[in-house]
Amino acid sequence: MKQIKRLFQIDPWKISTTTLDKENLRLQESLTSIGNGYMGMRGNFEETYSGDHHQGTYLAGIWYPDKTRVGWWKNGYPEYFGKVINAVNFIAMDIYINDQLIDLASLDPEDFSWELDMKNGVLSRQFTITTATNKVRFSFERFLSIVKSEAAYIRVKVELIAGSATVKFVSKLDGNVQNEDSNYDEHFWNQTDRGTKDSIGYLTTKTIPNAFDIEQFTVTAGMRHFINGKETTPIFEEQILALQGVFSYDLTPNDPVVVDKEVLILTSRDIPEAQQVATLMDEFDQLTTHYDEAKKEQTTAWAKRWELADVVIEGDDEAQQGIRFNLFQLFSTYYGEDERLNIGPKGFTGEKYGGATYWDTEAYAVPLYLALADPEVTKNLLKYRHNQLPQAIHNAQQQGLKGALYPMVTFTGVECHNEWEITFEEIHRNGAIAYAIYNYTNYTGDTSYLKNEGLEVLAEIARFWADRVHYSKRQNKYMIHGVTGPNEYENNINNNWYTNTIAAWVLRYTRENYLAFKEETTIEISEEELAKWADIVENMYYPIDEEQGIFVQHDTFLDKDLMPVSDLPLSELPLNQKWSWDKILRSCFIKQADVLQGIYFFNEEFTKEEKQRNFDFYEPMTVHESSLSPSIHAILAAELGLEEKAVEMYQRTARLDLDNYNNDTEDGLHITSMTGSWLAIVQGFAQMKTAHGELSFAPFLPNTWNAYSFHINYRGRLIFIAVSDEQVTFTLLNGEALELTVYGQAQELTDQLTIPLRKDDAHV
Amino acid sequence: MKQIKRLFQIDPWKISTTTLDKENLRLQESLTSIGNGYMGMRGNFEETYSGDHHQGTYLAGIWYPDKTRVGWWKNGYPEYFGKVINAVNFIAMDIYINDQLIDLASLDPEDFSWELDMKNGVLSRQFTITTATNKVRFSFERFLSIVKSEAAYIRVKVELIAGSATVKFVSKLDGNVQNEDSNYDEHFWNQTDRGTKDSIGYLTTKTIPNAFDIEQFTVTAGMRHFINGKETTPIFEEQILALQGVFSYDLTPNDPVVVDKEVLILTSRDIPEAQQVATLMDEFDQLTTHYDEAKKEQTTAWAKRWELADVVIEGDDEAQQGIRFNLFQLFSTYYGEDERLNIGPKGFTGEKYGGATYWDTEAYAVPLYLALADPEVTKNLLKYRHNQLPQAIHNAQQQGLKGALYPMVTFTGVECHNEWEITFEEIHRNGAIAYAIYNYTNYTGDTSYLKNEGLEVLAEIARFWADRVHYSKRQNKYMIHGVTGPNEYENNINNNWYTNTIAAWVLRYTRENYLAFKEETTIEISEEELAKWADIVENMYYPIDEEQGIFVQHDTFLDKDLMPVSDLPLSELPLNQKWSWDKILRSCFIKQADVLQGIYFFNEEFTKEEKQRNFDFYEPMTVHESSLSPSIHAILAAELGLEEKAVEMYQRTARLDLDNYNNDTEDGLHITSMTGSWLAIVQGFAQMKTAHGELSFAPFLPNTWNAYSFHINYRGRLIFIAVSDEQVTFTLLNGEALELTVYGQAQELTDQLTIPLRKDDAHV
Repeated sequence: MKQIKRLFQIDPWKISTTTLDKENLRLQESLTSIGNGYMGMRGNFEETYSGDHHQGTYLAGIWYPDKTRVGWWKNGYPEYFGKVINAVNFIAMDIYINDQLIDLASLDPEDFSWELDMKNGVLSRQFTITTATNKVRFSFERFLSIVKSEAAYIRVKVELIAGSATVKFVSKLDGNVQNEDSNYDEHFWNQTDRGTKDSIGYLTTKTIPNAFDIEQFTVTAGMRHFINGKETTPIFEEQILALQGVFSYDLTPNDPVVVDKEVLILTSRDIPEAQQVATLMDEFDQLTTHYDEAKKEQTTAWAKRWELADVVIEGDDEAQQGIRFNLFQLFSTYYGEDERLNIGPKGFTGEKYGGATYWDTEAYAVPLYLALADPEVTKNLLKYRHNQLPQAIHNAQQQGLKGALYPMVTFTGVECHNEWEITFEEIHRNGAIAYAIYNYTNYTGDTSYLKNEGLEVLAEIARFWADRVHYSKRQNKYMIHGVTGPNEYENNINNNWYTNTIAAWVLRYTRENYLAFKEETTIEISEEELAKWADIVENMYYPIDEEQGIFVQHDTFLDKDLMPVSDLPLSELPLNQKWSWDKILRSCFIKQADVLQGIYFFNEEFTKEEKQRNFDFYEPMTVHESSLSPSIHAILAAELGLEEKAVEMYQRTARLDLDNYNNDTEDGLHITSMTGSWLAIVQGFAQMKTAHGELSFAPFLPNTWNAYSFHINYRGRLIFIAVSDEQVTFTLLNGEALELTVYGQAQELTDQLTIPLRKDDAHV
Repeated sequence: MKQIKRLFQIDPWKISTTTLDKENLRLQESLTSIGNGYMGMRGNFEETYSGDHHQGTYLAGIWYPDKTRVGWWKNGYPEYFGKVINAVNFIAMDIYINDQLIDLASLDPEDFSWELDMKNGVLSRQFTITTATNKVRFSFERFLSIVKSEAAYIRVKVELIAGSATVKFVSKLDGNVQNEDSNYDEHFWNQTDRGTKDSIGYLTTKTIPNAFDIEQFTVTAGMRHFINGKETTPIFEEQILALQGVFSYDLTPNDPVVVDKEVLILTSRDIPEAQQVATLMDEFDQLTTHYDEAKKEQTTAWAKRWELADVVIEGDDEAQQGIRFNLFQLFSTYYGEDERLNIGPKGFTGEKYGGATYWDTEAYAVPLYLALADPEVTKNLLKYRHNQLPQAIHNAQQQGLKGALYPMVTFTGVECHNEWEITFEEIHRNGAIAYAIYNYTNYTGDTSYLKNEGLEVLAEIARFWADRVHYSKRQNKYMIHGVTGPNEYENNINNNWYTNTIAAWVLRYTRENYLAFKEETTIEISEEELAKWADIVENMYYPIDEEQGIFVQHDTFLDKDLMPVSDLPLSELPLNQKWSWDKILRSCFIKQADVLQGIYFFNEEFTKEEKQRNFDFYEPMTVHESSLSPSIHAILAAELGLEEKAVEMYQRTARLDLDNYNNDTEDGLHITSMTGSWLAIVQGFAQMKTAHGELSFAPFLPNTWNAYSFHINYRGRLIFIAVSDEQVTFTLLNGEALELTVYGQAQELTDQLTIPLRKDDAHV
């Protein structure tokens, strides 16, 4: 069993604790992050905290090209690494009681409580401080509006319980923030303006110039305050790269002072620098929804999201909390409202990894958004890649190759990543971009994207693969050498089964669809190219072990010293923290689904026996040290009737961050893998499949659960699926009747359909 | 044919030019480097030069642990990279004529000439500057004494040709020097003392503190001046991190001012910081040999070196200049006088690569020093590694392995290198350390080192290999996965034939010698270990292609798209500058001898046919982009009678820097590969072999040469070998008569032996 670290209580809707864990504050901050797609932040305190923690506020699409730092340059490396940058800290509010700064790093709070309410995205915190002369209760509450995404609301309440005290609030817009991962310890912001107008204070900061012709971003933050409900102008003070407003009050017992801070953030992505201050003032004028009412609107808006997206699990609050946390954080990062954005690996919860866009989006997020959002949201994610096609062509050229190579990590489409074994070799990512086009088209039945932008993207990806393979005269086969598969614990391998499979699939899918839509598209692909692609598809080499009946991860995998993870002492896990890289690379241990990822993607092409043999061979050697691993294993385990394994994998994906499985959540949440718990339930436990435009299910109920239910959007319908101990019920809430398959039997869903739950022996 | 860049004239003894090439000054500076084993410097000008160039003065054994810089940390990486650091510039002498600073970057010199005399290591330079009011001739000459290695002599002569002028000399000890390759742009020196005593000025600098418990070094530089032969005290001035002495004179036509600057450099490697200034003053007192006499001594000392080491080539001055340049630079770097030192890849000629010690020493330098120096010199090189055995054990532990792993790059024995594919994988280096022990023992016949320190080193290296192999149950063989062979254009390969071969050889050699000397050594190796080693030797897996009769570079090499380098357009070479790393890795092109390196090392174990087939297979795919490549190919080509290829490879190794073959000599000279031209002639053209303690020759004469000759030390004899168009003559200059084999015939060499030159058809 994995060692876990659980800092918050089990609760179906809340992330809460009564412990301030100063040793693990970074982890607590990660888990109390909030966001609204436009901006977000870690669970930092409003008041000063001088202990170890990670101050982090991030704005969607605001980044900096940080000059590449490597030990040894390799030809083909990108010039910069795009970093999500830490932006103005606008929640800051220092509090002094009788001139003593409130700083929990040095004080001992009583009655401490901290709670993130996932129903509405409100984060609150309370504590009491007792000194020789008084006892004071502090309450904080904040949320980032999903109704008006430029707006943030912060409420701070200070109440004298005993004694006497003066309170001073120093409310700040603070640009003195820095990325912990800055390559050259640079500070990424300059101040360009700062001022006040009536009760409003503002600060304009701009990213520093760069050498790569990347636009500089300007951000104006404004703040306005209400004291006990009344708009109040503080004494404004200017600090270096900051503006602050000061209020002081004498406290009377049982007569709390309540400060509401309203913040608006504008960026040059929407409002040009020159107009930001004027626009800010206008927007403050129009912002007549103040704290209490805004919180009500927020609760209503989140309720609407939950109505569609919530997965209700009865009988297992750990499991319930896990999936809600994942969906909450995922939607806090991306809700499909801005087609210029994508889904960053840490969202607004940390800096690590940098970059806005990974193949995680296409491989793991698209299926969820297809089911839980309007098709336009997924189409926007596809268009994002289409818009970046010229940059993907540039990336391929950087490697001396034809066609398009979508990047490992990017903001603009230009590759940012700089480890040769990933940047140059983990090229299977290019297949996932194509797969998402298939997935969208197949799920929605809408071929409009495929016929136009889709084929343009597919053709260039196909050209890349056709150039990247080579012909082995010895084997009379096309091969792909020098790759890193999804299992990043092996590098520079030859003929990774997954990569060869997805490359050949891209060539086949592109060719077939080009031929199918030839008359309706402007894309041109020559006969010669098509013939070449067909030849590669026909003669691709796949490492296969006939004896064991398995697809081999790559050419020499079976020469390794093969053993199950269970043979390792627990003290050696996680490998990535306990073993040298040399040892990891040479071992048989697998970081995440590799052959099994291919079986997941092309599931309908394999027999159950093939799935079984490969799962039985690879899963025992898999350490699941990528956050992307457990969900795929949960899905396949469920299909194979390995209920216990499926539930274990669900637990691991659903509570990856809440239980800090990989011992790295202090750096931020694993946002892009948060779709994993949803995939595990919907595609796993419920066995929803959509291949060939046919919808099917084959649900089972984990024996520790009483029931679970969820909604999906599917081709214009809204369907509610409820699985209980006895039956599975499909309810068509919206849209026309449709055919679906349940446990292999064709069914017609008109209004409601109830099928007895099948209980295989294998599930016991 | 390779494109070359030749900036200096062909001359058997000189490196000279009449062109100041401001575009390529870095390259000119590299090629005019001088050194005396204790210190050295690039061909920097004494006077200010404000144009692009690379200021570099280096002191043997003085280094700094520069904190590791990588993009992405891997477990097992070392904490720091040891850098050869740029030390006090002591040759500096600014010159003003009528207050105009002489700076060739902005002036147009006439009658410019620049010359390095390899006979005595004296570097000189002259030029004339004409202005509206005068015409002045400047001459510079300097050398670093090989008689007293702490001493440097600089002579500057200024002569008025026409007009009138005042000259001002500003002679400096300047600590404002920085490493171009500093990881974090740090300046590595602080000043600790500065002062004057009578005519002598001094500056003491100390390396900045470091976080790695590495000793800080203190260096005191002193200077004293003679004007027209008379000791003179300048006006001393203090600058930041520098001391300067100023002299001014009115010039009279044809009455030159000659400034002789004598410099002494002391370091804390020999003299503790606290005693440096006092010792310096004493040493200046005792330094009664001034410029002209010191130069005479220098010439005599170098003549003695040349007497033994010179290889005389008649009829080809290009070839002659090449080998003399190599020997000159090699001896300027290391002449075996200080057993604490080793042979750095750039010597005193640049900063790139860092580190003092590479496997180059054991693989390429040891054979030369065995023949051209006292056996003690080679023994010192071996002892250097024995002294670092604990650190090599530490390096293996860093990778989670038993035994000792000698480092890729080091000063202390602790690994400094930080690319996983090299640091963790290019482990064949460990075999070369063992091979040098064999080489010394076999060449000298002296088993004293082997029996004691040698076996200790061998046992730990053997333990490393025994742990690093794994057993493949599928193949019933021991394998070595995840290595980089000598061909660094492939990484993370499995079963590199060379690595498997040398690993098995180490296990065999160690076991045999342990059993042979068991009674005479204190080392203990258990029966169990010995049995295990024997089992590995017996069951090692070697990739072999029976059909083609070749050893295969690694498991999947033959699946590549195989083609000769000659199929590539010239514009794509060198690959390392023209191709992406991805393309290089996947290609069949080989950077340096790999399988052939193994055939070179264990030459006597292979048949001529095996050598021929492997050479014919691999050489055409080899791009020789490592400086270590051509010599090995020259040797094997010569053995196989491929005279033209042998001569081409000789040319390439001998003139690698002089003709800038790899387009990177501006960074410094390729010191450790400078043994290559000597190896190519002695082990190649003359086919000297020493396996099994038997000395043999089978010379041929390149058809563009008239004759060549050289000396060797061998087991107490000094032998002179002269090869002419008709015959080869062996002259025993010293020592007892010995048996040797010439063209396969046993011969007795008592005094002189003359054998007709064999001319095979293959040589025509």
